[in-house]
Amino acid sequence: MSEHSCPKRGFFAWPQGVRKVYQPGVRHPELKVPFREVTLSSEKGVVRLYDVTGPYGDPDGSCDMSRGIPRVRPEGGEGQLASARRGVLTPEMEFVAIREGFDPEFVRQEVAEGRAIIPANIRHRELEPMAIGRAFLVKINANIGNSAMSSGIEEELEKMLWSIRWGADTVMDLSTGKNIHEIRERIIRRCPVPLGTVPIYEALERAGGRVENLSWEIYRDVLVDQCEQGVDYFTVHAGVLRDFIPAAKARLTGIVSRGGSIMAKWMSLHREENFLYTHFREICQILKEYDAAFSLGDGLRPGSTHDANDAAQFGELKVLGELTKIAWSFDVQVMIEGPGHVPLQKVKENMDRQIEWCHGAPFYTLGPLPIDVGAGYDHITSAIGAALIGSLGTAMLCYVTPKEHLALPEKQDVKDGILAHKISALVADLAKGHPMAVAWNDAMSKARFEFRWEDQYRLSLDPDLCRRYREAALPKDPSSSRCCTMCGPDFCAMKITQEIV
Amino acid sequence: MSEHSCPKRGFFAWPQGVRKVYQPGVRHPELKVPFREVTLSSEKGVVRLYDVTGPYGDPDGSCDMSRGIPRVRPEGGEGQLASARRGVLTPEMEFVAIREGFDPEFVRQEVAEGRAIIPANIRHRELEPMAIGRAFLVKINANIGNSAMSSGIEEELEKMLWSIRWGADTVMDLSTGKNIHEIRERIIRRCPVPLGTVPIYEALERAGGRVENLSWEIYRDVLVDQCEQGVDYFTVHAGVLRDFIPAAKARLTGIVSRGGSIMAKWMSLHREENFLYTHFREICQILKEYDAAFSLGDGLRPGSTHDANDAAQFGELKVLGELTKIAWSFDVQVMIEGPGHVPLQKVKENMDRQIEWCHGAPFYTLGPLPIDVGAGYDHITSAIGAALIGSLGTAMLCYVTPKEHLALPEKQDVKDGILAHKISALVADLAKGHPMAVAWNDAMSKARFEFRWEDQYRLSLDPDLCRRYREAALPKDPSSSRCCTMCGPDFCAMKITQEIV
Repeated sequence: MSEHSCPKRGFFAWPQGVRKVYQPGVRHPELKVPFREVTLSSEKGVVRLYDVTGPYGDPDGSCDMSRGIPRVRPEGGEGQLASARRGVLTPEMEFVAIREGFDPEFVRQEVAEGRAIIPANIRHRELEPMAIGRAFLVKINANIGNSAMSSGIEEELEKMLWSIRWGADTVMDLSTGKNIHEIRERIIRRCPVPLGTVPIYEALERAGGRVENLSWEIYRDVLVDQCEQGVDYFTVHAGVLRDFIPAAKARLTGIVSRGGSIMAKWMSLHREENFLYTHFREICQILKEYDAAFSLGDGLRPGSTHDANDAAQFGELKVLGELTKIAWSFDVQVMIEGPGHVPLQKVKENMDRQIEWCHGAPFYTLGPLPIDVGAGYDHITSAIGAALIGSLGTAMLCYVTPKEHLALPEKQDVKDGILAHKISALVADLAKGHPMAVAWNDAMSKARFEFRWEDQYRLSLDPDLCRRYREAALPKDPSSSRCCTMCGPDFCAMKITQEIV
Repeated sequence: MSEHSCPKRGFFAWPQGVRKVYQPGVRHPELKVPFREVTLSSEKGVVRLYDVTGPYGDPDGSCDMSRGIPRVRPEGGEGQLASARRGVLTPEMEFVAIREGFDPEFVRQEVAEGRAIIPANIRHRELEPMAIGRAFLVKINANIGNSAMSSGIEEELEKMLWSIRWGADTVMDLSTGKNIHEIRERIIRRCPVPLGTVPIYEALERAGGRVENLSWEIYRDVLVDQCEQGVDYFTVHAGVLRDFIPAAKARLTGIVSRGGSIMAKWMSLHREENFLYTHFREICQILKEYDAAFSLGDGLRPGSTHDANDAAQFGELKVLGELTKIAWSFDVQVMIEGPGHVPLQKVKENMDRQIEWCHGAPFYTLGPLPIDVGAGYDHITSAIGAALIGSLGTAMLCYVTPKEHLALPEKQDVKDGILAHKISALVADLAKGHPMAVAWNDAMSKARFEFRWEDQYRLSLDPDLCRRYREAALPKDPSSSRCCTMCGPDFCAMKITQEIV
């Protein structure tokens, strides 16, 4: 992709009345904190929305796709957790404070206590800092990455851009096919959001695809290489212990985490404890050097509602809590991955135990999917569970696409998965009363009641789609500007309400 | 539409391994209670799913579209509530008992106590009885109907068929445009599920579209005509009282129920109390004659999360509780309509108050939509709120389509809206532990773990879509039968799990 095919042109074109703006820092005036600013019609003011599109969303932003995007963070630095604990307010902390409308000191405290993380590898200088924590806006992650059976570098890069176009707060590269290293390098140098990986995938590739040949040494080398590239957080399945395997094998659907199943098989072949557990302190030492964060993996998450909240799952969660304390002793930031498939009545127990056992570290959940029969529509299944667990305190939601359980997602699936989980995140934000979510919602409702259609489009998640839906159905008649075809002009309740004296 | 264009052909073709079966009654051996039976491969048995497709889903069923479908219920009868209270087990009660796997006596008790209704107008003899109640499977309703700006008779009939094709348990005809009476007649004679209406719409049409000309007499005549046609339940906005109008007018989004706004305007013009309230006993008398049920309308439901749970909404809900007692005194069955837009943390209060104030009568909710900015994707927004309130006890969910707030839905929107809310209903069923939901879910998970792809398709909500998703991505290689392109053969966690010794 050359500069001439910069995806910015057209790809990130906002509708009229929407633009990218920046706010400088106070302590760090060099900061350029981005917002998507919606100017409402009829002098109704502006609404500032959270924006993750980096230079791609800015008509004046540089996005030379042949070399990567500009570096916006200074070199080096001590690491967020260590700084926060010493009372130091880093540029990253001020950045996220402005971004979410919080006091910077509050951000520092949340980071210091481990309740929020700012995943930001010192080598990922293209990153716009963001926070993952219960007190912050709920974030969403989009998975990209190829498998042995499909997809190449350009497609995955395109998916990354597409993901942030629709609002992914972080991206995980889960490639397990060819060219894992090259795909990642291309992505990180062009990625304004934190990038996560699961290093065991590349380790397995280096071990020739044979689980029995995996070793701590191979894994360690992969981890260092990925840290050097600038990966911001790592899924590490260090809580899958030998003791839990019999319980997991006895389940209806066994182990459904790729990393979890790899480690379980390795332990079973070698009759040894999980090397990610036995070498955990060395892993901490490596991550600390780069200020990379842990995403402690739930290798034993349930893959069916039948298996939810069982001994294997909760046994692992307790271990993740112990590992959290160890990571914190190295000043390494931690979030905890969560299930999976969980019926709705068992969701709260997951959240409560995670907060208690993992000492308040942020929770990062896949779904949960509260039924198992939603194939083809599992972005919706997942969005339901995600909204509930988000409102209970989960800090980041991993998207699920309509192709889950069936195939690797394509572009449209990525978009559908992201938007479904953006909705879940907003549901949670509003339930928790985040002022940015309240302001956004009320602005939309007011525009709706006042029939300001252009403002409704601008404030929606997908302005072009909303305009198309309404206008395709509408006759070319000026009287219809006060209604839509759902009810027509005579049966519009809001119009009738306004006629009541 | 002639017999030759019977929609059954192709339209309702099940995949191989899926067929319509019937079970006879014990007390009423003439009953033919339908199921969709999925025969699993490898002699793994059968799973019986709830089915609403009537004769259209049966290759041997008659569906002469020029005349209507066969009448399956006997003429006349006393009415469900009166019978249940006298200890009489009607054919309809046994039908729904078999359909959901319950003891018939339990069904009778739920109906007698008003906790469940079996909407079944004695004139709608094409109906396959179904129950709406907290102890039963959560049902979903699909709205069809034209507006002044779009859609004709054939399109609406097609939407009804399409709705039951995808699993709508009831259909509401909300037509406000031309030919309201004719559209309804055509639909009822071809409709195997309960049909609901909002009679004030036709009354307003008869009043020349002028709210000031509406009167009790016009409304009464409409109601009798619709009862004669066989409408099974009626939305009646009898709880919108004059006292509540100031509070509703002061809201961010006023009144968003069409019926609610019409009655509010009428009261304001005439300076009189709502005639649906003042003539409520006469309405009960009419409904009793036909065993038609009330769906007491929430004319003051909030149209924005900002307005949720306010004095206007809860004031009306209390009145609906009083009206419920009156309807019950006439042996008329009642369900209660609910919001609207409600942020997630306020959903439970809606359910709790409804149960308390409305004496356990079934709740029938629109959404609730827990955010306001989801336009274009509001089927997902609504599915989130619906799943939560369903798991808390709501008996029926009104679907919302992706076009909500923007335009009248088309066929694809109807399908998307139904499937999203089918998922919500299943989430609730599983959370409440309904044995049919548990069996279905576990069968799917087992098929998934055993790589029985055909069984997964058959058990899914949309078999053709699932097959297409997986097979389009798959290389033509026999080794791939054990996996999908999401992970490929080497990274399939379930495959690896099965290799662990």
